[in-house]
Amino acid sequence: MEKEEDRLRQEYPWIQTPLVVGAPMRLIALADMAVEVSKAGGIGFVGAGTDVSTLRSHLQHVQKLLHSSTPLPVSDNTLPIGVGFINWGAGLADSLSIIKEYRPAAVWFFAPSSPASLVAWADNTRQASPATKIWVQVGSVTEAMDTVKQVAPDVLVVQGTDAGGHGLARGAGLISLLPEVCDAVAAHFQPANNRERKPILLAAGGITESRAATAAFILGASGIVLGTRLLATPQAAISHGYRAEILRATDGGQNTVRTTVYDTLRGTQWPASHNARGLINQSFTDAVGGMSEEMNKKLYEEEMGKGDVGWGFQGRMTTYAGSGVGLVKEVKGAREVVGELRDGVRKLLVGLGREERM
Amino acid sequence: MEKEEDRLRQEYPWIQTPLVVGAPMRLIALADMAVEVSKAGGIGFVGAGTDVSTLRSHLQHVQKLLHSSTPLPVSDNTLPIGVGFINWGAGLADSLSIIKEYRPAAVWFFAPSSPASLVAWADNTRQASPATKIWVQVGSVTEAMDTVKQVAPDVLVVQGTDAGGHGLARGAGLISLLPEVCDAVAAHFQPANNRERKPILLAAGGITESRAATAAFILGASGIVLGTRLLATPQAAISHGYRAEILRATDGGQNTVRTTVYDTLRGTQWPASHNARGLINQSFTDAVGGMSEEMNKKLYEEEMGKGDVGWGFQGRMTTYAGSGVGLVKEVKGAREVVGELRDGVRKLLVGLGREERM
Repeated sequence: MEKEEDRLRQEYPWIQTPLVVGAPMRLIALADMAVEVSKAGGIGFVGAGTDVSTLRSHLQHVQKLLHSSTPLPVSDNTLPIGVGFINWGAGLADSLSIIKEYRPAAVWFFAPSSPASLVAWADNTRQASPATKIWVQVGSVTEAMDTVKQVAPDVLVVQGTDAGGHGLARGAGLISLLPEVCDAVAAHFQPANNRERKPILLAAGGITESRAATAAFILGASGIVLGTRLLATPQAAISHGYRAEILRATDGGQNTVRTTVYDTLRGTQWPASHNARGLINQSFTDAVGGMSEEMNKKLYEEEMGKGDVGWGFQGRMTTYAGSGVGLVKEVKGAREVVGELRDGVRKLLVGLGREERM
Repeated sequence: MEKEEDRLRQEYPWIQTPLVVGAPMRLIALADMAVEVSKAGGIGFVGAGTDVSTLRSHLQHVQKLLHSSTPLPVSDNTLPIGVGFINWGAGLADSLSIIKEYRPAAVWFFAPSSPASLVAWADNTRQASPATKIWVQVGSVTEAMDTVKQVAPDVLVVQGTDAGGHGLARGAGLISLLPEVCDAVAAHFQPANNRERKPILLAAGGITESRAATAAFILGASGIVLGTRLLATPQAAISHGYRAEILRATDGGQNTVRTTVYDTLRGTQWPASHNARGLINQSFTDAVGGMSEEMNKKLYEEEMGKGDVGWGFQGRMTTYAGSGVGLVKEVKGAREVVGELRDGVRKLLVGLGREERM
């Protein structure tokens, strides 16, 4: 792991290790979040998602926030944050011109419409901004190895099925997925030629506090990704109702569910291979109870006018969250969240070393 | 964790720590498996399951195997193995007379028909064999806390959704489930009265090798449970075809599924709250493709006469396995599996302590 950490510190010179990354949550992780996470020594991402029409203004906001304080040390004149794209939706040409202009330290690709499309995104990004690192999110061993072979990513973000929001409909938890990906990647890069192309593995999915993060390092990650935990920060661009639900919800395995119901209500066109984990609410309960899609949509649209009361298990507003939501108990600044998590991991690892009885 | 390990070594004096437990897999973990796991310094279980009519003969076999080698140190004259019951199916009266006669070191309860039934099992077991420890398997924070309050178990086996075989239909991976259960249990036993009733937490679900096991210890477990890994041992009472599938299968998140299809084919009467994870085979593919239950059952029953070729993704024999199946690559004796896993955990923890860079 040390070798990977050295590489990370070289490529993203403002970071501290163990690395904590802020997930590019669509419409939620914008300039405030990205900059605060990076200022905390993590890597913050702006979640451009499927629509890059407002991305330029978010990146201008990032620049402004960064200029207003001590500059972060960067590599090759890149912007010390990343940008996340949901590739099946985002326009390639527009995205490339923005990547070229703003030179983010990393792009995070997810859910391309085809392997060929992913290759096009990767090749064109490397041309537009050679210093920008290419991260690809995957949810299975097969997807990981296909991605390694097709685009030689700098980073593989391995997402377990406990993650909130979108991911592969069928999946495994990090406890079994991550070591298997780790072994498959290691086997692919044996014998030792082309070692420099070996991607760094990051873990996402179900990590909201330091025990889970430490576990992910042991499972083979060189850094971890926070999504749900960062919803309970002032930097998340979400309503009070959404944030209150994140604090209220417990027992994520029982009170969240992976489903396409919320996509259907919102009319988003995800490929059939993907669905999303969110808190169970009235829309979901009605859908499984047999309510027509038309009626469910109508009630959802009415609910949109109700403000914060639209959230909750009797509400209808979509509340994406991972299985670790029950461990999120209070709102804190993103910077504090990242710092505390990193310190927590360090302490746990030191504590383990001292546990001679083991 | 040290305190819990001391308690474990006192209550099960033949064990070594970190504790490795053999899951009470129904029809699969019988005398050979239970004894080999205990001889390896773990705690082996006989999986009585829903039917105790052959349990007495399995326990006689256990006694015979134990008598044929150096006796294991035991506490209070108990049998140094456990017995697992699937409570909704197993007969209470018959089970109690066997528990009384054979005094297993532990009983493992799972899926009772009601909270009252679980209380009856626990109370009567304590009366029949006071030295027998009561373990209860749970799959959610709610179930964990209800169980703690209702029956004060000696051990809570916290099962993540990556587990093979039966468990809660809706669940979370250990990475988020275990720390939340851990915190809820700790909060329940604050202030510090009645601390001796605090259950020991064990982790099950998705653990097939030492990285996952080490992660589970960090997440809050005081011991781990192996199921799928032990299928690839000569001690598992399974056919060659089943074992070959366990070795062949990779990428468990994609190639296993939680479903009730296999229960339907076999006519087992699990409560609706539960389903089971197994490798995807032709029966499952046909069921989701719309084949009638009647036809699917007919084909399943025909397949039963075909021997080892009945297994595989084009076969129809049920092949329960957890998401960690892709990390199971070779057949080894159960004793070797347990010893290697324990050594692997120790090494990983020592390695971490040395990693000063973290």
